[in-house]
Amino acid sequence: MHRQGRVVLFEAAGKDFRQETYEVRSLKYGELLVKNRYTTICGSDLHTFCGVRKELSPTVLGHEIVGEIVELGPGHPGVDMRGNPLSTGDLITWTIFSSEPESWYSRHGMPQKAEQLFKYGHALAAGEEIFHGGMGQFCILREHTTVLKLPAGIPLAVAATLNCSTATVAGALRMAGDLQDKNILITGMGHLGITCAAMCKSAGAAMVIGADIAPGRLATATQFGADKVMNLASDAALITKQLQDFPRKGIDVVFDMSGSPEAMELGLAHLAVGGTAVWIGAVFNTRPLQINPESIIRRLITIKGLHNYNFEDFNYAMTFLENNWQRYPFEQAIEKEFELAEAQQAFTYAVQEKPLRVGLRIDHV
Amino acid sequence: MHRQGRVVLFEAAGKDFRQETYEVRSLKYGELLVKNRYTTICGSDLHTFCGVRKELSPTVLGHEIVGEIVELGPGHPGVDMRGNPLSTGDLITWTIFSSEPESWYSRHGMPQKAEQLFKYGHALAAGEEIFHGGMGQFCILREHTTVLKLPAGIPLAVAATLNCSTATVAGALRMAGDLQDKNILITGMGHLGITCAAMCKSAGAAMVIGADIAPGRLATATQFGADKVMNLASDAALITKQLQDFPRKGIDVVFDMSGSPEAMELGLAHLAVGGTAVWIGAVFNTRPLQINPESIIRRLITIKGLHNYNFEDFNYAMTFLENNWQRYPFEQAIEKEFELAEAQQAFTYAVQEKPLRVGLRIDHV
Repeated sequence: MHRQGRVVLFEAAGKDFRQETYEVRSLKYGELLVKNRYTTICGSDLHTFCGVRKELSPTVLGHEIVGEIVELGPGHPGVDMRGNPLSTGDLITWTIFSSEPESWYSRHGMPQKAEQLFKYGHALAAGEEIFHGGMGQFCILREHTTVLKLPAGIPLAVAATLNCSTATVAGALRMAGDLQDKNILITGMGHLGITCAAMCKSAGAAMVIGADIAPGRLATATQFGADKVMNLASDAALITKQLQDFPRKGIDVVFDMSGSPEAMELGLAHLAVGGTAVWIGAVFNTRPLQINPESIIRRLITIKGLHNYNFEDFNYAMTFLENNWQRYPFEQAIEKEFELAEAQQAFTYAVQEKPLRVGLRIDHV
Repeated sequence: MHRQGRVVLFEAAGKDFRQETYEVRSLKYGELLVKNRYTTICGSDLHTFCGVRKELSPTVLGHEIVGEIVELGPGHPGVDMRGNPLSTGDLITWTIFSSEPESWYSRHGMPQKAEQLFKYGHALAAGEEIFHGGMGQFCILREHTTVLKLPAGIPLAVAATLNCSTATVAGALRMAGDLQDKNILITGMGHLGITCAAMCKSAGAAMVIGADIAPGRLATATQFGADKVMNLASDAALITKQLQDFPRKGIDVVFDMSGSPEAMELGLAHLAVGGTAVWIGAVFNTRPLQINPESIIRRLITIKGLHNYNFEDFNYAMTFLENNWQRYPFEQAIEKEFELAEAQQAFTYAVQEKPLRVGLRIDHV
């Protein structure tokens, strides 16, 4: 069956998106064809849009996507990662990458770093390989893309954030270990930060402090489970006092979602003995951090970097959202919606207004 | 019974040791009296001796000690950590610290950081609290000091290093996780470094590279299981080539035993994706490290600092030495021996000649 679909092409920073219609190629072994239904614009899409991050181009941006199965390719197993049967019309989310299951990295819990990795919303759009991003009407899911069916009732806008923001935060919690009764600092109250606050509370944290430099984001943080908020632009002595006011005279776990060197240094400085820092935010170039190794050693500090996530995290993210999307105002975190055809306005709005997320509805008439 | 014993007092860097005779106080609840038999001089003893590290003084240095039980105090459980009965005359080693078992840190696998910690060879010698270091004829082991009986036949000089060097290296391996088939770099081929090489090989490492700037130490490293050695003073391009020549284009685990900022930065730079750095060496002030957080994040790097060790590590160290002290030339690592009365010469020799270890025989006539 011949199908055509629209895509929004990104060519270069500073250049307007270009909308085109292409033929959708036929499916290969193990693939799925998905009609995209909703895409949220992630911070890294904005980095590419603004030229802070370089991708091959032209490309179809957007990797926080949900869609509806249109066709199962030859040899597709026909089930999602939980064993639920998959049929046309099912609403699904999928991992941001497809990766070779036999790779050393896949076998060691890091499928996101396997060789021959393919990442949705990050690839060159050329020849017949066009439909691999969220800013188009279709997406072809390659073999070895892990899929989960969406639970009934979850809003598409909320579900769209699962395969990047929510799953990465799930990975951050896995790296941090047991959070029961721990005192936690989260620097950067963007979408990952607020999700992290809610997830830490649901994992049994004693105290979650949400920190940012934007007062509006701090107000939102309290709606997502933060017990306290802290303006990182405020007086250093006050910050220190608040972060030392614990039985172990420091924070047990700090998550950095901001990518700010100052925030990462502050987090390390205020970790209690035995504390852990998990860094997620700095997926762009920053000044080098200044770290005192004696202090890391004498305080038994652990630092872990995380980029993307693994299948366990993806599954955890789904369970978390199923149970919590109504407990916290996740729907309101998609602050403004646009149609796919309004992609230019959507990105411009996102860059200027810095909402937690902007959503793109992808309607099929 | 009244007993007297000699101690060697350290008063200040640059000042000669002072030898004195004191009354040994009677034992309190849960204590053990030990006649010291052998003490090895650790790098941190030398740091104090040279004024690089500050301790309360006067103090009795020396914490790598083995001795013979003279008396079990009231309420002592009468068994070692493996449940072996303890009697007078038994040769034992003990943890460098006594710590409160109910402390949060003890309950969370970090007894070395408990409140009310007491560390042998690190305390003020005053009043009747004199015998708590290795540079004296006796040592009073406080309540909650974990003890292990020495296996028959192990040389005292080798056993003396167990409760600091060997146990700390055991902790480093615990932090690094599974080493089976991993490619490992160890920077700093002092006593901890060579022990680490041997322990990594016995834990199934595929390849152990021992690195240092001193050619003599590199020669020793090969005797302790290092598959390759690398002079860190050599050409940077050559070092890079050697450290990238692996399937994952980098090192899986790097242990820093040197405390050198350059070595720690080099180790981080050459970790493969998913790699782990364990820092142990920098227990003194250094320049800050310069760390690129984006690289830590994108490569999923873990950094762990370790100071001292826990009971699991202490026990692992004993099992390791029991099985391996004859497989590697651990006895030769104590390069020169002195009598306790020759402490001044022993320290001067250690500072000038930089042997792996100097030993102090503590004879009781």
